[in-house]
Amino acid sequence: MTKTGRYTRLAGMAGLAVLAMSAPAFAQEAEEAFTLTAPETAYIFNTLLFLIGGFLVMWMAAGFAMLEAGLVRSKNVAMQCTKNISLFSIATIMYYLVGYNLMYSGVDGGYFGSISLWGVDDSAGPAADGTGYASASDWFFQVVFVATAASIVSGTLAERIKLWPFLLFTVVLTGVIYPIQGAWQWGGGWLSEMGFSDFAGSTIVHSTGGWAALMGALILGPRIGKYVKGGGVNALPGSSMPLATLGTFILWLGWFGFNGASQLALGTVADANAVSTIFINTNMAAAGGVIAAMLLTQLLYKKVDITMALNGALAGLVSITAEPLAPTLGWALGIGAIGGVIVVLTVPLLDKLHIDDVVGAIPVHLFCGIWGTMAVPLTNGDTSFAVQATGVISIGIFVAVTSLVLWLALRFTIGIRCSEEEEMMGLDKAEIGVEAYPEFTAS
Amino acid sequence: MTKTGRYTRLAGMAGLAVLAMSAPAFAQEAEEAFTLTAPETAYIFNTLLFLIGGFLVMWMAAGFAMLEAGLVRSKNVAMQCTKNISLFSIATIMYYLVGYNLMYSGVDGGYFGSISLWGVDDSAGPAADGTGYASASDWFFQVVFVATAASIVSGTLAERIKLWPFLLFTVVLTGVIYPIQGAWQWGGGWLSEMGFSDFAGSTIVHSTGGWAALMGALILGPRIGKYVKGGGVNALPGSSMPLATLGTFILWLGWFGFNGASQLALGTVADANAVSTIFINTNMAAAGGVIAAMLLTQLLYKKVDITMALNGALAGLVSITAEPLAPTLGWALGIGAIGGVIVVLTVPLLDKLHIDDVVGAIPVHLFCGIWGTMAVPLTNGDTSFAVQATGVISIGIFVAVTSLVLWLALRFTIGIRCSEEEEMMGLDKAEIGVEAYPEFTAS
Amino acid sequence: MTKTGRYTRLAGMAGLAVLAMSAPAFAQEAEEAFTLTAPETAYIFNTLLFLIGGFLVMWMAAGFAMLEAGLVRSKNVAMQCTKNISLFSIATIMYYLVGYNLMYSGVDGGYFGSISLWGVDDSAGPAADGTGYASASDWFFQVVFVATAASIVSGTLAERIKLWPFLLFTVVLTGVIYPIQGAWQWGGGWLSEMGFSDFAGSTIVHSTGGWAALMGALILGPRIGKYVKGGGVNALPGSSMPLATLGTFILWLGWFGFNGASQLALGTVADANAVSTIFINTNMAAAGGVIAAMLLTQLLYKKVDITMALNGALAGLVSITAEPLAPTLGWALGIGAIGGVIVVLTVPLLDKLHIDDVVGAIPVHLFCGIWGTMAVPLTNGDTSFAVQATGVISIGIFVAVTSLVLWLALRFTIGIRCSEEEEMMGLDKAEIGVEAYPEFTAS
Repeated sequence: MTKTGRYTRLAGMAGLAVLAMSAPAFAQEAEEAFTLTAPETAYIFNTLLFLIGGFLVMWMAAGFAMLEAGLVRSKNVAMQCTKNISLFSIATIMYYLVGYNLMYSGVDGGYFGSISLWGVDDSAGPAADGTGYASASDWFFQVVFVATAASIVSGTLAERIKLWPFLLFTVVLTGVIYPIQGAWQWGGGWLSEMGFSDFAGSTIVHSTGGWAALMGALILGPRIGKYVKGGGVNALPGSSMPLATLGTFILWLGWFGFNGASQLALGTVADANAVSTIFINTNMAAAGGVIAAMLLTQLLYKKVDITMALNGALAGLVSITAEPLAPTLGWALGIGAIGGVIVVLTVPLLDKLHIDDVVGAIPVHLFCGIWGTMAVPLTNGDTSFAVQATGVISIGIFVAVTSLVLWLALRFTIGIRCSEEEEMMGLDKAEIGVEAYPEFTAS
Repeated sequence: MTKTGRYTRLAGMAGLAVLAMSAPAFAQEAEEAFTLTAPETAYIFNTLLFLIGGFLVMWMAAGFAMLEAGLVRSKNVAMQCTKNISLFSIATIMYYLVGYNLMYSGVDGGYFGSISLWGVDDSAGPAADGTGYASASDWFFQVVFVATAASIVSGTLAERIKLWPFLLFTVVLTGVIYPIQGAWQWGGGWLSEMGFSDFAGSTIVHSTGGWAALMGALILGPRIGKYVKGGGVNALPGSSMPLATLGTFILWLGWFGFNGASQLALGTVADANAVSTIFINTNMAAAGGVIAAMLLTQLLYKKVDITMALNGALAGLVSITAEPLAPTLGWALGIGAIGGVIVVLTVPLLDKLHIDDVVGAIPVHLFCGIWGTMAVPLTNGDTSFAVQATGVISIGIFVAVTSLVLWLALRFTIGIRCSEEEEMMGLDKAEIGVEAYPEFTAS
Repeated sequence: MTKTGRYTRLAGMAGLAVLAMSAPAFAQEAEEAFTLTAPETAYIFNTLLFLIGGFLVMWMAAGFAMLEAGLVRSKNVAMQCTKNISLFSIATIMYYLVGYNLMYSGVDGGYFGSISLWGVDDSAGPAADGTGYASASDWFFQVVFVATAASIVSGTLAERIKLWPFLLFTVVLTGVIYPIQGAWQWGGGWLSEMGFSDFAGSTIVHSTGGWAALMGALILGPRIGKYVKGGGVNALPGSSMPLATLGTFILWLGWFGFNGASQLALGTVADANAVSTIFINTNMAAAGGVIAAMLLTQLLYKKVDITMALNGALAGLVSITAEPLAPTLGWALGIGAIGGVIVVLTVPLLDKLHIDDVVGAIPVHLFCGIWGTMAVPLTNGDTSFAVQATGVISIGIFVAVTSLVLWLALRFTIGIRCSEEEEMMGLDKAEIGVEAYPEFTAS
C-alpha cells in the first residue's frame, strides 16, 4: 500500500512549518537522524494539554447555551442561543485584537500589559527546563476562558435584555475588563506578586462574570411578572429540563479541561500526577455539590428541585476551581458540598432582594467563586486569607465599577432593555425573527 | 512578551507537586538538566490515556441521561435527568469511600479487597517496564465505569420507581455489589486466576447493570397501562427521538474511551497499535449493530424503528466490549451485527414475559453483554467457552441475588414504587416539583 | 495496594499485541530494559493525534444529526435522526469493504487505487523519520471524514426523500464516489502531482458532499408548499433552534479534529506548532463567519436570523478547511467572514432558482468549499489559482456527473421521493413508525 499523496502532503506541511522556525535544531532535522530531545518531548506534551484542555473549554460554550436554553421560557430560547454563539465569537475576536496582550504582554508587576494585536510566535522553541509549548496552543486555551466569563452574564440577564447592547457589553468585557483584572494575577501583575492564588479562575473567571452579571441585573431590573407586589415570587419555569441537564453535563465535562489544563504543563511526571489529581478533585467537588443541593432541597422543600441539583454541580465546580490540586478527595467533596449549600440558600436571597437572575448564575459563579477563592488557604499552606481577600475584593471592585459604568452608559445611550410589549411577546419574535419551537407552543 | 505570572504560577504548581513526591529522580529535577527517561515518557502517555478515556466515559453519563430523557414520556423526563446526575455523583462518592479499595486493594486471588478510603498515592513513580501511571488517573478511569453500571438500572426502572429508594440501591450497587464482582476479575481475584477474559466489561459492567435492572423490574412490576389484559402491549412512546439519538451518539463517542483506554497503557508502540485497533473495532461493531437492527426491523415490521436502530448501535458496542482487540474488522462487524439482531428479537420477548424495560436496557446490556463475553473465544485463542461461561454465570448469580435481596429489602421497608396517582400524574410533578417541559404539554 | 489482576490483564494485552508484530525491536522488549526511541515516541504522538482527531470528527455525526433535527419540521425529525446514524454506519462499512483501498492503495499518480478489503497492518512499525503511526488510527481518522461528506447530502434532501434510496446513494457515495476523487489528491493521484492543495478537504469532503446534495435536490424537486406560484417562498421553519444550535457547536468542536489532525503528525515540535496554529485559525474563521452573518442579516433584514448565525459558523469553518495553517489570525478572520457573507447572500439565491435545500448545506459546504479552496493561494505561496481551479472543477464535474447518474438511476428504478400523502403526513409516521415528539404536536 503506497500512500504517496499523504506523505507528500505531510512533507509539504512540515516544510511550511519548518520555514516558520528559526531554532537551528530544527533546520537540520531533514538531514540528520530523527531525534526528540527531552525538552522537545515535553513541549509536545505541554502543547497537547493546552489543545485538549482548550477544546474541552470551548465545548463549555455549548454547555452554557443549552443550560440557558433550558432555563428560559420557550419564547426566548432562540435569543439565548444566538447570544451564546455570538458572545463566543466576539470573545475570540476581541482577545485577538486587544485582550491577550493587554493581559499577558509586559505586565511586570503592574496593572495591565500592552495594547496590540496578538500573533503566533514560536521562535522561542522548546525551553531548556521543559516548560515550553506552542504559543498558539496557549492562546487557544486562554481565549476559551474569556468566553466563559462572558457566558455567565448572558444567563442572568436573559428574557429582557436587547441583543446588540448585550453584545457591545461583551466586546468591552472580553477586550478590556477581563484582561485587565486577569493581568493582575495571571499576567504577573501586582496581585501575583502579593501571593494571591487562583489556580483556574474562581475569581478571575467566575466572579468576574458574576460581578458583571450582578451589575447588569441591578441596572436592567427584573422581568415583568417575576416579583409580585406584596412580596410574592413567580417561578417562570424554564422550557426544557433535559436541555438544562445536558448543558450541565457539558459544563462538567468541559471543566476537566478548565481546571486540568490550568496546570499548564504535562511534560513531567509531576505534572501528569498533578493534572490527574485535579481531574478527580474537580469531579468529586461536582458530585458533592449535587448531593448537598439535593439533600438540602429535600429537607427544606420536601422535594428535590432538579434546577438546584444542576446548579449544585456547577457550584461544586466553581468552588474547587481556585484550588483543585492541593485538596484531598475528602476536602474536594466538602468544598464542593458547601458550594451546593450556598446555591440552595442564596437563590431565594436574591429573590428577596428582587434581583432577577434567570439561571442562578450569580449564586453559582459569584458567591461560589468567592467561597472557592477564600477556601484556598484551607488546603494550600502557601496562601493566606488576607491575601485571598485582597484579590477577591480588588477584582470585585474593579469589575463591579467598570461594569456598572458600562451598563449605565449603554442604558442612557442606546438603551439595554426591550419594550414591555417585546418582553411579553418574547425576544425570539422581537429580535431574532425565528421562533425556537414554532410547532410546540400555542402562542 | 514576558509572562512572569504564568511562569510563577507554573513553578509554584510544579513545586507543590514535587513536594508530594519521594522518588529521588524528581527531587533533583530542579538542579539538573531537564530529562525524560523512557519510563517517565511512558508514564505520561499512560496517564494521558486514562485521562482522555476517563473524560470520554464520564461523558457517557450525559448519554444515558439524554437517551432515557428521550425514551420516557414527558411527565417523567425531569426525574430521569435528576436520577442520572445524582447516580453519577453517588458512584463517585461511594467508589471513593468503599468501592475502589474493595475492588482493587489486596484481592490476591480472592473475593474482595479491603474496606478503606481511597487516596492518591504516587509514591511508586514510573515503573521500570513502562507500565506506570498516575494513580489518580487510574482512579478517575475506574470511577466512571462504576457510574456506567448504575446508569443501566436507571433506564429500565423509569416512570414508576421512587427517587430516593433508587438512589439507595445505587449507593449499594456502586459501593459494594459492583466492586466485589469486579474484584473477582479486574482486581486480580479468583476469576482472573482462572483465565476469564472481559476486556472492558461486557459482563463486569454491562451485564452487572443489566442483572440489577432485571431484578428491579421483576420486583417493581410494569408501568400502569403497559400490558393489557388479554396479551396486548401498549407502546407508551418516548417523548423525544432527537434526544434519544443524541444520547446514543454520546454513548458511541464515549465508548472509544471505555474500550480504548481499557488497554490501560499507551507508552509503547504495541499499546498505541492496540488502542487504535480497539477504536476501529468498537466503531465497526456499532455500525454493524445499527445496520442489522434496521434491516431486521424493516423485514419484520416493514418499517425501520428508530429506537431499534439506536439500541442496535448500543447492542453492537456492548457486544464488542468483552474483546475489542483480537477481532478483525470483519469479525467486529459480525459480532456487532449479532448484537443488533439480539436486541430486535428480545425486546418483544421481554414484553411477552411482562417484564417492563422502559428503554430496552436489559436486551442491550444484559443479553448482549452475555453474547459479547461468550464470543471472546471466537477470536481470542487464549480463552475458553467454559471459563467464559463460568464468569458470566458466577457474576450473574452474585449480582442477581444481591440485587434481588436489596430490592426486596427496600420494597418491604421504605417502598420502591410511587403511588398509582403519582404514576399517572408523572414523577416530575410528584417528586421533582419541576416539569420537564412546562409549555409543551397540555397536562 | 496490589493490583495483580490489572497488571495481569495489561501483560496479557501487551502480549496479544506483541504477537501481531514482526519488527525485532519489539520482540526483545520483554527481556531488555524498557526504552522508547525517538521514532517510537513520535509514532505514539502521531497515533494519538489521529485517535483524538478521529473521535472529534466522529462526534460531528451527532452535530449533523442535531443540526438537521432542529432545522426540519417535527414530523420529519425521527427520519433525519435515523438517516444520520445509519449513514455513519454505512460509511464505516463501505470504507472498510471498498473505499479506503480504492482511495489510498497504489494510486501512484493515477485515478484510483485497488479494489480490496482494508485490514490492519502495523508491520512497518515506527518510521525512521518520525512519520510513523498505527495504521488503524489513520483508518479511523479517514473513515469519519467519509461520513462527513455523506452527512451533507442528508440535510439538503430532508423532508421528502425516502429512506432506503437515500441509503443506497450513501453506499455508492461512500464506497466509490468519495474515494475516487479523494484518490486524485490525498491518495497521491494526478491532482496531487499537479500541486493542488486542499489541506483538510474544503473540496474533497465539503464540496463533494455539496455537489451530491445539489444534484439530489435538482432531481428530487422542492418540498410541497415551499415555493408558491408567482414567486413566493414559504419559510417552513425548523422545529427546534436549540437543537440546531447544539448541532452547530458540536460541529465547531469536531472541526478542531477535522482540521487539526489533518496535519497528520504530532511527533515533532514543528507539528505541534502547526496543529496549534490550525486550532486557532479554525476557531477564528468560525467566529468571523458568525459575526459577518449576524451583521449582514441585521443590515439586510433588520433582525438577526439565528439560522444564518449558525450557518455562518459552519461557513467560516468550511472556508478555512482548505488551508488552516498558512493564514495569520487576521486572514483566518477574513476568510471565515467572507464565508459568512456567501451564505447569507446565496441562501435566497437558491430559493430564487427553486432549489430547495432544507438546511442550507449547499451554500455552506459547496459554495464556501469552493471559496475556501480558491482562497488558498492568498496565504500559501506554493499554490496557484489555476491549479486550485483545476481541482475544484475536475472534482466538481466528477462528483456532479456520477451523482446525477446515480440519482437518476434510483429515481427511475425504485424511486426516490415519497408520495404526496406521506410528505404531508411526515416521514416519521410514513417510514419510521415512531414520531419524534408524540406529545408536543397536535397532529
